[in-house]
Amino acid sequence: MLTINRLNQTEAKTIIDGAVNKANELGVPMCIAVVDESGNLIAFERMDGGKVHSITISQDKAFTAASARKGTHEFNKACIPGHKNNLFGIHTALGGRMCIVGGGLPITFNGSVVGGIGVSSGSPEQDLGCAQAGVDSFSKTYG
Amino acid sequence: MLTINRLNQTEAKTIIDGAVNKANELGVPMCIAVVDESGNLIAFERMDGGKVHSITISQDKAFTAASARKGTHEFNKACIPGHKNNLFGIHTALGGRMCIVGGGLPITFNGSVVGGIGVSSGSPEQDLGCAQAGVDSFSKTYG
Amino acid sequence: MLTINRLNQTEAKTIIDGAVNKANELGVPMCIAVVDESGNLIAFERMDGGKVHSITISQDKAFTAASARKGTHEFNKACIPGHKNNLFGIHTALGGRMCIVGGGLPITFNGSVVGGIGVSSGSPEQDLGCAQAGVDSFSKTYG
Amino acid sequence: MLTINRLNQTEAKTIIDGAVNKANELGVPMCIAVVDESGNLIAFERMDGGKVHSITISQDKAFTAASARKGTHEFNKACIPGHKNNLFGIHTALGGRMCIVGGGLPITFNGSVVGGIGVSSGSPEQDLGCAQAGVDSFSKTYG
Repeated sequence: MLTINRLNQTEAKTIIDGAVNKANELGVPMCIAVVDESGNLIAFERMDGGKVHSITISQDKAFTAASARKGTHEFNKACIPGHKNNLFGIHTALGGRMCIVGGGLPITFNGSVVGGIGVSSGSPEQDLGCAQAGVDSFSKTYG
Repeated sequence: MLTINRLNQTEAKTIIDGAVNKANELGVPMCIAVVDESGNLIAFERMDGGKVHSITISQDKAFTAASARKGTHEFNKACIPGHKNNLFGIHTALGGRMCIVGGGLPITFNGSVVGGIGVSSGSPEQDLGCAQAGVDSFSKTYG
Repeated sequence: MLTINRLNQTEAKTIIDGAVNKANELGVPMCIAVVDESGNLIAFERMDGGKVHSITISQDKAFTAASARKGTHEFNKACIPGHKNNLFGIHTALGGRMCIVGGGLPITFNGSVVGGIGVSSGSPEQDLGCAQAGVDSFSKTYG
Repeated sequence: MLTINRLNQTEAKTIIDGAVNKANELGVPMCIAVVDESGNLIAFERMDGGKVHSITISQDKAFTAASARKGTHEFNKACIPGHKNNLFGIHTALGGRMCIVGGGLPITFNGSVVGGIGVSSGSPEQDLGCAQAGVDSFSKTYG
């Protein structure tokens, strides 16, 4: 039997709050999704003014980051046509649910991935900034 | 130009809190989704122990209720093979996103639908009870 | 932080072996899927002669049983047009991934669901018999 | 409660008429879609001779432009493999519904996006020209 650590609802809210604070600081209303270590949604908030397409993209970023155990921007840097790494095309997997646009990060606890956060509605750099703020909020409170 | 009223994030949280309180009273951890008047997700919470398939079903119930402007259980009662109402089959529309299982309710303000709530993880009766508690929480606070 | 119990690969193989033995006894080659407690696939075997459509259906049965924490045949008995339980329509949710055909069972350990098994290619009764044999094999070895 | 401005049907027809006039001028029969500010379809016209695949693409362009609040061609310029903006991959999101081919534009009124237009069947440049003609028709009549 495996024993798995998984974010709970209280922790998910702490993560979202951290991202919301950063989004308010940037002045960009965001969609923010938190998933568990299996990629399934725990909590979601569309700030007033968050974009409709970002509802799905934020969830897909969170899923990708939790499942792949790395930031979606890391896939982005490596997903280049003709590159010898043979990675190009990963972005169309799972009907496009694999999201390699920046703004998704895994949430780590005691060295293992326990969930993921995905943020969307700004530029990928802004999205990543808010995702990192969510991670930092978690680390500061529970690290 | 049309002028539309739409739930904001604060109101969505009030609705979710009402449903969570009822779920705790029932002892059934729920997935709870709130959508705007166009059926797009605003807020979502999977209580610790909420079921994975209910992540999607709660959103689909909220979407159906907001878009159809009635409870999903009302569709359920009318969706009967061979019935002269010719409604049977509505449950497979939109790739199954039309959800006629009980537990979805529209949110009404000043006589127009401004959003919807969908609840899933219990029996349809329990789900509907929690959705109603969400509606009541909204009415009590903003009615 | 939540602590979750999840089937490991060795246990999944024990479950599949139990189902395969029963399928051989029945003389019906089956598709057998085992998922974890989040509904994600751990192990799959299509016995020589197993049917192509059953590749998907066995996985959907296992997903449904693990997520809903009950046998798919239990949904089948309750999913009746016009029934006052308001459950009809559950079978088309998630694009039809919710599978209410008999043959899916949850796997339970120490009182919580740790995974699911889904079997397809025979009659629902045969499928359920093989799924039960998988559960029994697990209980006998690890119970 | 949020208050949202949304295109009405009369305005949508004005937008389509502007695009149709331009398409006739170019001699290219087009598919033209107008969506509301949430990305949901309000009006659609396939001119005699408009292409079948463009039925979907025009709608996806309109959805993308309304939701993202910018022209689809702007995404096109920025969606480059290996670019430091980390945006590549946005074009496969939402099962490919995010459309970054030129020909989608938001419709703006009093500084906020109230809808979108998407045009398809010609070259992206021709499509964009017709979309712009639709926008201009709206601005001239209601601006």
